[in-house]
Amino acid sequence: MAPIDNPHPPVEVLGPEGVGRIVDAAFRLIEEAGLEFRSARALSILKANGADVDEATQMVRMGRDVVKHFAGLAPARIPLHARNPERDTFLGGNRINFNTVGSPPNISDLEGGRRPGSYKDLCDLVKLNHALGVIHLAGGSVVEPLDLPVVSRHLDNAYALLRYTDRPIMVRTVSAFRAEDAIEMVAIARGRDRETLCGECSLGTSFNVNSPRRVDEELLDGLMCFAENGQMVAITPFTLAGAMSPVTVAGALVQQTAEALAVIAFSQMVKAGAPVMFGGFTSNVDMKSGAPAFGTPEYVRATLAGGEIARHFKLPYRSSNVNASNVVDAQSTYESAMSLYAVIMGHANLVHHGLGWLEGGLTASVEKTVVDAEMIRAWAASLEPLDLSDDALAVDAIKGVVPGGHFFGEAHTLARYETAFYQPMISDWRNFKAWEEDGARTATERAHILAKRLLENYEAPPMDVAVNEALKDFMARRKRELAVEAA
Amino acid sequence: MAPIDNPHPPVEVLGPEGVGRIVDAAFRLIEEAGLEFRSARALSILKANGADVDEATQMVRMGRDVVKHFAGLAPARIPLHARNPERDTFLGGNRINFNTVGSPPNISDLEGGRRPGSYKDLCDLVKLNHALGVIHLAGGSVVEPLDLPVVSRHLDNAYALLRYTDRPIMVRTVSAFRAEDAIEMVAIARGRDRETLCGECSLGTSFNVNSPRRVDEELLDGLMCFAENGQMVAITPFTLAGAMSPVTVAGALVQQTAEALAVIAFSQMVKAGAPVMFGGFTSNVDMKSGAPAFGTPEYVRATLAGGEIARHFKLPYRSSNVNASNVVDAQSTYESAMSLYAVIMGHANLVHHGLGWLEGGLTASVEKTVVDAEMIRAWAASLEPLDLSDDALAVDAIKGVVPGGHFFGEAHTLARYETAFYQPMISDWRNFKAWEEDGARTATERAHILAKRLLENYEAPPMDVAVNEALKDFMARRKRELAVEAA
Repeated sequence: MAPIDNPHPPVEVLGPEGVGRIVDAAFRLIEEAGLEFRSARALSILKANGADVDEATQMVRMGRDVVKHFAGLAPARIPLHARNPERDTFLGGNRINFNTVGSPPNISDLEGGRRPGSYKDLCDLVKLNHALGVIHLAGGSVVEPLDLPVVSRHLDNAYALLRYTDRPIMVRTVSAFRAEDAIEMVAIARGRDRETLCGECSLGTSFNVNSPRRVDEELLDGLMCFAENGQMVAITPFTLAGAMSPVTVAGALVQQTAEALAVIAFSQMVKAGAPVMFGGFTSNVDMKSGAPAFGTPEYVRATLAGGEIARHFKLPYRSSNVNASNVVDAQSTYESAMSLYAVIMGHANLVHHGLGWLEGGLTASVEKTVVDAEMIRAWAASLEPLDLSDDALAVDAIKGVVPGGHFFGEAHTLARYETAFYQPMISDWRNFKAWEEDGARTATERAHILAKRLLENYEAPPMDVAVNEALKDFMARRKRELAVEAA
Repeated sequence: MAPIDNPHPPVEVLGPEGVGRIVDAAFRLIEEAGLEFRSARALSILKANGADVDEATQMVRMGRDVVKHFAGLAPARIPLHARNPERDTFLGGNRINFNTVGSPPNISDLEGGRRPGSYKDLCDLVKLNHALGVIHLAGGSVVEPLDLPVVSRHLDNAYALLRYTDRPIMVRTVSAFRAEDAIEMVAIARGRDRETLCGECSLGTSFNVNSPRRVDEELLDGLMCFAENGQMVAITPFTLAGAMSPVTVAGALVQQTAEALAVIAFSQMVKAGAPVMFGGFTSNVDMKSGAPAFGTPEYVRATLAGGEIARHFKLPYRSSNVNASNVVDAQSTYESAMSLYAVIMGHANLVHHGLGWLEGGLTASVEKTVVDAEMIRAWAASLEPLDLSDDALAVDAIKGVVPGGHFFGEAHTLARYETAFYQPMISDWRNFKAWEEDGARTATERAHILAKRLLENYEAPPMDVAVNEALKDFMARRKRELAVEAA
């Protein structure tokens, strides 16, 4: 799908004064309470750059001047390179990029039901996303390939993303070696040496703060590797109001802002100008069960507010298309629809978990992937400008049809009808009788049928044979090395 | 539900220049081609007020000065009175009012399937809407009571709306006698004499132009009756792009604007200051089948544009929550979600067909009524301002939880958790296992269960016994009279 540039101003729920209140409280939190950075290397970098570090507790406090200075070094716009240059995009401004769901442990489809993810499922989901053509990035692991060894499955995952799509990719970077491997593979796929690639941001990772206020060592290792190598890190606190953050949306936003800003400032201490995003994932939990809720009114306002705060700091903004339903039904759809409204009208530059997320992120759904694609395509078409040319205004065409008549056979209609309107993929607009006689299928069932057909007809985007071989060789070598290290 | 006032500026797809182009083309159409008014009485009123009337063809052309003058007499804000004064509302500004679906011939629910509507179904839908508590108005016939005589079913319908809800009502006004009867019944229900009621707008009707450019006699009779008696008419051309209007959205908008403005100008010739709305119903047809499509990208932009044009003329705006699905599934939900985005962010003051519309309006669905209620409640909560008090910012609460800890047991949480978040009616946020063991129900199935429970526990809003008797006496008398006239 073509890039989506939102022509509308973002919807604001805070306003400048509200942003000021959230930001001031967030600074107070970083100054007075701080975050725990569980990495000796990170602590030494923080200390060397003006942070107040307590090495015994690993607690880090920073004055707002330090935070503002370093956060101000991060770029407002991140060009993002794909292995197919036609798929290059950027993160910033009013550009909205959609990515696949990332890292659910389960896969689900109408035929096979809900089951643990496998590498075949992962490959099929990547192919489905490529065939649907809606994504602007691909990855995370789309679904976790639980049948592969933990130590090396990141290699297979990166290969599937690089081989079966041609978009910029995102990967998980738990530990530096995984980040390193992904960078090497993207360099091969893009035909770049390592130094060139470091100047051309070509992959990204989602970095979660272990909220409240804890930053884990393995994640910091991955972040430092990506920052040093000029690759994108979307820094996203996991602030579910009522559980890992206060029960008030404003309080969760304060914590989200403090956690994100502190880590963003740190990233710029690692390397000034490193491409990072301000990530928002604030939602609420169901206070009866403790279960996370998504696509709620709290999620909508937190997502819109997150965009305002990101723009205040001139940082690209990452958000998500999420729901908490267990099945692809009206709930999964209305919760996703509210999420999509918030991310699009909040000018999220990266919509992670854009297609296929189900069950609060525990499942990647084949049918939900298709339904999300339909919803995103419709949103994108809704953002296109209206043609207001004389020809489109059609005064003469209207005058040419008698009162009570119709436009079906008119020249103005015949010249345009084939391309006049949005063409859906799974919407069924036939009358009830025709629909019923054809099996009375729901949209979810039609999504299943479409997914099967797309997979059957899937064609991989072209890749040079030598590049493919080089990727496979790299994987084989690294698998041997990792097996030795693990043994 | 409390009134919904949208704090966000409306989303605009035309802008002032685009509005100018549509409006200029619409004026040209009224000046050069005109509309067919199929009523001798209407033609004489039009002629007496400066319109160019061709009595042989019933074609009416008007200069833009005449149209502007008369349209300018219509009020920008229409106070609307309910039989329960707590339900009074108004049409205008940033107030968004939701109404039930109006006049589908079929009813559908999971148990009974799809079938022709009956008076019992109509009463049940009115009761369900009252119990859900989301509507700000009630009516149209919600579902057509096909088991009642055509000539008098408007009486039963008005009675059901007045007895089983306490909101302002909308009725169908095909022919003056139906409009008259509804006005009399509302006067009884509100305990007002006819003259007082004429000064207190208490009911409305949806008036469709028989597009293209034809205005039917029986509808004009109803409109003139309502205008003379100070009751609201939402003037809504039926401009499906590609069928009853040009295949371009801009062309359909030109025609919609011309048709609505011409009839609005006429309404003010009948009575200056008569409460009327600028209605938009522009969508597109599926050019393969000719079937109407709703909730499409074309619908979204036409709906947002309609709001801009209505505001240009300082007229309250009517739109709809519509979809073209045959079943309460993901399609009905994403098409409705796009419609809701457009009507809410386009500042529609009246959302007719707000709850329960299915199958392009051919069916009133029990489960869709509940799903729509859930979606509208979530939207309303999303429009509420965020609490940004020091207490809500919760800096001390955050400082009080250790890194990696949680907020479940904190005093700040315990003091607020019961009312902190939006409480859904049918969303199921439990984990997959709990949901599966409890029957693995979809949201549509849960909506069915909730609808049954609400109907079982339904309590009618209080009504004075004498008022109820007076309504029944009026109906009985009118039924006798209408039977005699029909014989």
